[in-house]
Amino acid sequence: MPILKAAIIGGGHIADDNHIPALKALPDQVEVIAICSRDKQKARTLADKHGVPFAYDNPLEMYESESKPDIIVNCTANNLHYPFTIQALQHDCHVFCEKPPAMNAAEAADMAELAKNKEKVLAYNFQLRQTEEYSLLKKCLENGELGKVYHIKANFLRRRGIPGWGNFTNKTIQGGGALIDLGVHVLDLALGMLDYQMPDRIVANTYDLIGKAGGKGLMGDWNPETFEVEDGCFAHLSFPNNSSISLSASFALNTKLQKNVNLEVFGSKAGALLNPFTLYTEFAGELTDMEFPHLEQTDIQLKNTTAFLDTCAGKPSNICNAEQGAVLQAIVEKIYQSAQR
Amino acid sequence: MPILKAAIIGGGHIADDNHIPALKALPDQVEVIAICSRDKQKARTLADKHGVPFAYDNPLEMYESESKPDIIVNCTANNLHYPFTIQALQHDCHVFCEKPPAMNAAEAADMAELAKNKEKVLAYNFQLRQTEEYSLLKKCLENGELGKVYHIKANFLRRRGIPGWGNFTNKTIQGGGALIDLGVHVLDLALGMLDYQMPDRIVANTYDLIGKAGGKGLMGDWNPETFEVEDGCFAHLSFPNNSSISLSASFALNTKLQKNVNLEVFGSKAGALLNPFTLYTEFAGELTDMEFPHLEQTDIQLKNTTAFLDTCAGKPSNICNAEQGAVLQAIVEKIYQSAQR
Amino acid sequence: MPILKAAIIGGGHIADDNHIPALKALPDQVEVIAICSRDKQKARTLADKHGVPFAYDNPLEMYESESKPDIIVNCTANNLHYPFTIQALQHDCHVFCEKPPAMNAAEAADMAELAKNKEKVLAYNFQLRQTEEYSLLKKCLENGELGKVYHIKANFLRRRGIPGWGNFTNKTIQGGGALIDLGVHVLDLALGMLDYQMPDRIVANTYDLIGKAGGKGLMGDWNPETFEVEDGCFAHLSFPNNSSISLSASFALNTKLQKNVNLEVFGSKAGALLNPFTLYTEFAGELTDMEFPHLEQTDIQLKNTTAFLDTCAGKPSNICNAEQGAVLQAIVEKIYQSAQR
Amino acid sequence: MPILKAAIIGGGHIADDNHIPALKALPDQVEVIAICSRDKQKARTLADKHGVPFAYDNPLEMYESESKPDIIVNCTANNLHYPFTIQALQHDCHVFCEKPPAMNAAEAADMAELAKNKEKVLAYNFQLRQTEEYSLLKKCLENGELGKVYHIKANFLRRRGIPGWGNFTNKTIQGGGALIDLGVHVLDLALGMLDYQMPDRIVANTYDLIGKAGGKGLMGDWNPETFEVEDGCFAHLSFPNNSSISLSASFALNTKLQKNVNLEVFGSKAGALLNPFTLYTEFAGELTDMEFPHLEQTDIQLKNTTAFLDTCAGKPSNICNAEQGAVLQAIVEKIYQSAQR
Amino acid sequence: MPILKAAIIGGGHIADDNHIPALKALPDQVEVIAICSRDKQKARTLADKHGVPFAYDNPLEMYESESKPDIIVNCTANNLHYPFTIQALQHDCHVFCEKPPAMNAAEAADMAELAKNKEKVLAYNFQLRQTEEYSLLKKCLENGELGKVYHIKANFLRRRGIPGWGNFTNKTIQGGGALIDLGVHVLDLALGMLDYQMPDRIVANTYDLIGKAGGKGLMGDWNPETFEVEDGCFAHLSFPNNSSISLSASFALNTKLQKNVNLEVFGSKAGALLNPFTLYTEFAGELTDMEFPHLEQTDIQLKNTTAFLDTCAGKPSNICNAEQGAVLQAIVEKIYQSAQR
Amino acid sequence: MPILKAAIIGGGHIADDNHIPALKALPDQVEVIAICSRDKQKARTLADKHGVPFAYDNPLEMYESESKPDIIVNCTANNLHYPFTIQALQHDCHVFCEKPPAMNAAEAADMAELAKNKEKVLAYNFQLRQTEEYSLLKKCLENGELGKVYHIKANFLRRRGIPGWGNFTNKTIQGGGALIDLGVHVLDLALGMLDYQMPDRIVANTYDLIGKAGGKGLMGDWNPETFEVEDGCFAHLSFPNNSSISLSASFALNTKLQKNVNLEVFGSKAGALLNPFTLYTEFAGELTDMEFPHLEQTDIQLKNTTAFLDTCAGKPSNICNAEQGAVLQAIVEKIYQSAQR
Repeated sequence: MPILKAAIIGGGHIADDNHIPALKALPDQVEVIAICSRDKQKARTLADKHGVPFAYDNPLEMYESESKPDIIVNCTANNLHYPFTIQALQHDCHVFCEKPPAMNAAEAADMAELAKNKEKVLAYNFQLRQTEEYSLLKKCLENGELGKVYHIKANFLRRRGIPGWGNFTNKTIQGGGALIDLGVHVLDLALGMLDYQMPDRIVANTYDLIGKAGGKGLMGDWNPETFEVEDGCFAHLSFPNNSSISLSASFALNTKLQKNVNLEVFGSKAGALLNPFTLYTEFAGELTDMEFPHLEQTDIQLKNTTAFLDTCAGKPSNICNAEQGAVLQAIVEKIYQSAQR
Repeated sequence: MPILKAAIIGGGHIADDNHIPALKALPDQVEVIAICSRDKQKARTLADKHGVPFAYDNPLEMYESESKPDIIVNCTANNLHYPFTIQALQHDCHVFCEKPPAMNAAEAADMAELAKNKEKVLAYNFQLRQTEEYSLLKKCLENGELGKVYHIKANFLRRRGIPGWGNFTNKTIQGGGALIDLGVHVLDLALGMLDYQMPDRIVANTYDLIGKAGGKGLMGDWNPETFEVEDGCFAHLSFPNNSSISLSASFALNTKLQKNVNLEVFGSKAGALLNPFTLYTEFAGELTDMEFPHLEQTDIQLKNTTAFLDTCAGKPSNICNAEQGAVLQAIVEKIYQSAQR
Repeated sequence: MPILKAAIIGGGHIADDNHIPALKALPDQVEVIAICSRDKQKARTLADKHGVPFAYDNPLEMYESESKPDIIVNCTANNLHYPFTIQALQHDCHVFCEKPPAMNAAEAADMAELAKNKEKVLAYNFQLRQTEEYSLLKKCLENGELGKVYHIKANFLRRRGIPGWGNFTNKTIQGGGALIDLGVHVLDLALGMLDYQMPDRIVANTYDLIGKAGGKGLMGDWNPETFEVEDGCFAHLSFPNNSSISLSASFALNTKLQKNVNLEVFGSKAGALLNPFTLYTEFAGELTDMEFPHLEQTDIQLKNTTAFLDTCAGKPSNICNAEQGAVLQAIVEKIYQSAQR
Repeated sequence: MPILKAAIIGGGHIADDNHIPALKALPDQVEVIAICSRDKQKARTLADKHGVPFAYDNPLEMYESESKPDIIVNCTANNLHYPFTIQALQHDCHVFCEKPPAMNAAEAADMAELAKNKEKVLAYNFQLRQTEEYSLLKKCLENGELGKVYHIKANFLRRRGIPGWGNFTNKTIQGGGALIDLGVHVLDLALGMLDYQMPDRIVANTYDLIGKAGGKGLMGDWNPETFEVEDGCFAHLSFPNNSSISLSASFALNTKLQKNVNLEVFGSKAGALLNPFTLYTEFAGELTDMEFPHLEQTDIQLKNTTAFLDTCAGKPSNICNAEQGAVLQAIVEKIYQSAQR
Repeated sequence: MPILKAAIIGGGHIADDNHIPALKALPDQVEVIAICSRDKQKARTLADKHGVPFAYDNPLEMYESESKPDIIVNCTANNLHYPFTIQALQHDCHVFCEKPPAMNAAEAADMAELAKNKEKVLAYNFQLRQTEEYSLLKKCLENGELGKVYHIKANFLRRRGIPGWGNFTNKTIQGGGALIDLGVHVLDLALGMLDYQMPDRIVANTYDLIGKAGGKGLMGDWNPETFEVEDGCFAHLSFPNNSSISLSASFALNTKLQKNVNLEVFGSKAGALLNPFTLYTEFAGELTDMEFPHLEQTDIQLKNTTAFLDTCAGKPSNICNAEQGAVLQAIVEKIYQSAQR
Repeated sequence: MPILKAAIIGGGHIADDNHIPALKALPDQVEVIAICSRDKQKARTLADKHGVPFAYDNPLEMYESESKPDIIVNCTANNLHYPFTIQALQHDCHVFCEKPPAMNAAEAADMAELAKNKEKVLAYNFQLRQTEEYSLLKKCLENGELGKVYHIKANFLRRRGIPGWGNFTNKTIQGGGALIDLGVHVLDLALGMLDYQMPDRIVANTYDLIGKAGGKGLMGDWNPETFEVEDGCFAHLSFPNNSSISLSASFALNTKLQKNVNLEVFGSKAGALLNPFTLYTEFAGELTDMEFPHLEQTDIQLKNTTAFLDTCAGKPSNICNAEQGAVLQAIVEKIYQSAQR
């Protein structure tokens, strides 16, 4: 296999800490050749830090250069996922785009359609798919150990985790709050257990009382004056085959745990808790709780980047693909619409 | 105050274990004068056991007797709540009726209207209202310690608690399964935190996969062949003021705990867990978890019976009254309708 | 089925607390008609307490009486198991004999042979066979969940449990100490997992250092001067098919737990701990610990007495039968021989 | 004291991680002058890493060089312990040999005899002797706190610890499996509590069912096709003075803990658990559990290397000497013989 | 020994629940012949309940009757300990008096002197002396295991334990609050570890802020209006030999535990915690925590009553005698004086 | 603000590990220009390590140099706190002096007076004031949440923490033992809760039995021959407003914890435990335990150095000032006097 050339757009910490190290760890498959950031100095500094040859402040320059990339890793803000991904696809690049897919359903659908037309890979970086726990959960599903899965509680809850930095409370840039930033992770995991169907009924409520009131923060101090997004979102999704998801996401919620990211999966044969992974089922005619204390931790970004590259190489993988991204974004849009009434 | 005369209709264990002992413990307020059961021998045996003078197999006989009761305690099966309550009200008795109020919204509304017209007390025995934990929760709400309550998770979950006795799986007699038998308890508690409003949006799903498949039971063995009701119910209720409830009820669910009856209440100032009672809030600018290890246990049936008698005596109480019962029953009906589509 | 007539020989606490209540709880199958004790007054008192019609001080009288028993429950001291059982069989009674079967291998073999010749049931009261945990363990074995079981650690260990009453330290009456009184229980359970084979190699050591030195007792104070038996026994049993048992029994041992009765079973597919019941195996390619927190407790004496009566009625049961008793006693004898060298 | 010159034979991780750092930490007593490995390049690289002057691929060359070593540290595979130790002794070197001593009893006896004849130190690296816990256990023994020690349970159990690297499953190179690789450690500790006597009776069983079947590994993946050794070994050792050892060792066993290395020591006055160190005894007429939560951790390889060097300097030490090594190897051989029958 | 005749003065729960049952359990040593209470009906009822022949409302009547008692058990209120004890001694009775000895130092000294002159036993019912834990503590002291004991922290702390019944908050009847009612128990235990010396320096503070403010009670509701005693007392006692006690007692204190009755004893060789009994010392050159999980619970009132009767019979015992009571009361007086300044 | 010039006197680990790093972390406020140590080479090495320009062996030289410091950080031994602080003040420097303030009350009073006359800042480095826990405790006090604080238990206890290095057991250099080295920290915290009043009554006892006997050490081995100070100190302080402190400090004490540094604060409305911070109070009429699991750890030396610099800049701070230091030292002196009698 030829070694693919990858370029990064966006010079923030997700590029620095996650994507570049993962790509650098796979030298037989990919080479990072450029970093592109609105702030060229930032691009240059980051490139030097990681031994990347080129730095740009405009992707177009990159596409026209000799060392045109094969792959774009889109690490920009949410509202730039669409334009930079479209541009990359138009320049015949595979795109590995950060989550959420886009700002709304239409954008995500367009992106998926263009990728299909261009026969390029477009995928989204939902790296929680790669934990040992979720892999085991999927294996149990596929082996039939859960029976029919009919209800899932999906939570991504922070007690006081409104970030005091970045644009997390800016609706124009982010497109929303706890749901679009955090909830999408567990929504993706839950949909992965239910054939990634589109629900036919959704009712949802969103809130911003804590965000707008201010208070003690555990991820720095946020400014309640400029808080524009939801701090909490609670939704019920019902699917045509009568399965259902109860989704809860929060930046701020008066609850016990500082962070609670989990799935409870209820099937006809067994139920499962994702973290710590536990199965509740029958065995030899008795009820058993199955614990798995020896699961090994893995580098989930490395596994997700590998999955993306496998897809680029035509191999099957469990990456979140463009079609799934479009479904996810459509659900997010419907949840927000339901909450606004 | 004169001592009121009470009669029991229905000779099952709820009469024997809960209502009669509670009434007997309040001799200054009430006297149990009769027990009425379809099976007269059963009525007689129970009456002798508790030192009750009269036993009947037909309430009409009782209403026409000399010792006509002032109060009827309706301990019959769900499908008899309506006829025996209507009959009792028509005979100018106060009625203390077991939960759920009735089989459907229309019945409960009729019952409330008749009670109003007759100027008699009609109340429902939701005794979980009387725990120390719920009293404290209500006090926190009333003192403003929770701020605005906007979301409640209400659970009444059994892992394998389909009763192997009685009519719990018979839809004609019970009107439903986990929701109407168990879920109504925590729905009542949750509504009590939200001014007992009527939600304007409801989406719900119900299931019967475990009940119909059979398996290990922890409350005796049930017959999957005759299992007609839902073993699980998950619903989202959204209210006009944007508050919401996520309700989960199960007879059987592949989950950890044998029994999980709880409320998680999320308010703008504080959150609360009902059992064990805990508050999550800020204090002196820091996040605190407030535990209450010295709450004393109380006899909740005795307290609820006292509340009913207080109402009969014209005093204020926290009993579930006829209007609340009608709201509750209407919600239950809508949940079932939503689940059936 | 006709109701069988049972008589008890031996008037100690095991008759009073275990056998008589169990028999009385099964009135459709058995009637206790007599109690026989060397001390006739004791027999009479016990009979009156339990509503038993006849009391004797000599079994012969009983066999010759009108109400000759069908069943003898032999609750005498160890050294009387043999004579009273032989006598009962000779009088054509089924015999339910307390453990251990006898004082030595020859006695137990004789007893088994006579029972066979007389076509009567002879069984031993190893009631630990009837716990929910052991039933589940056997079910796992039979379902093949353990694979081939190849090694078992069987422990019945007391820290300081030399009884300060009875004849437990008298070798002439008891035939031995910790092994014959306690170890036989877990040896029986372990053999039940290995087709109750006879081992072809045994090495064992027994000790009496604590028993003869004296010290703090947790079951009353014992007299070190008259301590004649082993306080500890450690043995390795190797079977022709290469499976093995490591057996440990103690009346007194300087160890943590006051009482430790357990089996660790090692199979090729899974391992099991008996108490609390846990399975260690693979599931979906990962290692799992399976816990069973919802096992229900049962009345093990009642279940064992039922099993005995089932056997008398010609039904299959999991009672310890005469042949198994003979194997067990032969092993005990070999362990003592190995320890004496 | 002159500084002794040491050379390492064998360039694997035990040399790299354990022996060389320990020797380098004792510059006043010893200097590492050479590393010898079949693969000279490996020897050179390792030498450079640790600042060792010479590298060889043949020990003979080393013995004939100017800088002839005084000490040989034999870090080779089990089947090379004998030839390289004999060679080193013949060249008048002290030898610090990795465990196990040899492949069989005859080799170990020869090695001990030659060392004696040559008046050179031969010792084996059983570094678990140097833990604070074992030191305290020995001190309790020597102070008489345990009374007479009569039974020891010695365990070195791994749940799924068949190494996926090296030669651990190759019988020709290793001489065996769990016993010779792991069990020898705790056997050495147990023998150290019993005057390092030779048992007069041994019965043992070994197994390979998991190793040959394959499955989930926690130390990499092993190849069941080439698995030639025992994955489990259970033995009972009885000594002429009637003390006994129950030894259990496993590479793979369906049990709870990933790794369980422990001794339970039963004495007439007290019992002891090695990890965490606890004494079970009487005090002031009552039973007490004595815990030692403030034991300090030490560098056990450094302490064992120091003990070896002390021996070379004619000082007493608690190193495993050549005679003990021969006893240990003879016991290992007898265990394997018993298991084969 | 002749059987002594005992009479009870005071008909409250301490007579009913503690003293009479203990005396009745010792029929070979003592017979309860009379109960005397200000309220004769109460005396009669109590006598009938316990099968006691005589009931009086005036002790003089009793002393002049035929069945004159040998022993008086003084169960009256604190302010009646003195007059009834003096009266009993004057009538040549042994006296077993409830704690505290008296209302002040002078009373207790007088009582001791009269007992000495009359050659009668006067003892106080400090039954905490009889716990297994304190017996073991004393044994350790006597065996020299603690070395020289130099400091003791003695606590009898209740979080919110101001009794809502009785006279506990009435200074005229009780003589004080937390110190004289609760603190005396642990002060007695601590003094028993220090040869019951008289301290030469005392400094103390007492408080009543919670008692006078009112609040949630865990032993019923108290009336802050009539709260006259200390709710907390903290004192430091220094003895001529330089040992010291830090004493803390409370009816109400904002602390974690509902009830905390304990001693921490610091000696030169070892320290001890009373509950759960633990020793902190050195063993084999290492620091050890010695736990005693197998201490058996005993009936401490029965043991204390037995000790009193032994004293009456001229046998040695560990009862709190008249001289010790006088020392204790003198210390209590000095503490109150120091707190008042 | 101009950047102040700081010089360090004393080259030990407290300068190296605490003060210099903290000062270097505040480059906008302070510059470290010199280090002065009796051993000039040590001063030079330390200066080079931290990039400090000048090194001296005599402070006078420093004061006369061009780069005369504005601030002296006095990190010398206790007996040098006085002379070097006086000298520094006389040279018009602010002084940040290590704890304890001085060797006796007179020294500390002189130091405070001179600082006042020179209008310079003199402060002491009690850095435990800066923990999040103590800040929260003070905030609760100031907000009135504790009501009136009336009793404090202040503990700084080590089980076996007599340092095996330095001068900690030398009375001439240290001025005392556990009290002056450890106890002063918690005494300072406790006084800070009580308006830093002077107590009017003190009784204390000090001990040296363990220190002089020798034994196992957990902070190295100490020499019992040269042990001159107290290993334990227990004192009761009573204040004019009737509040009180019970103070306990130890280098060595036979107790459970290796180190126990804590305050228990008892107020009329609430009580508090410092570590882990917990409040015990009433809420909504019930007793609550308030935990604060999300307190963030901070660099307490950095915060205390900042507080000192703020004071130098004329800003308010919570530093221990010269007057408080004088009160503290006077109390320490009185405790020692009380203990000596």
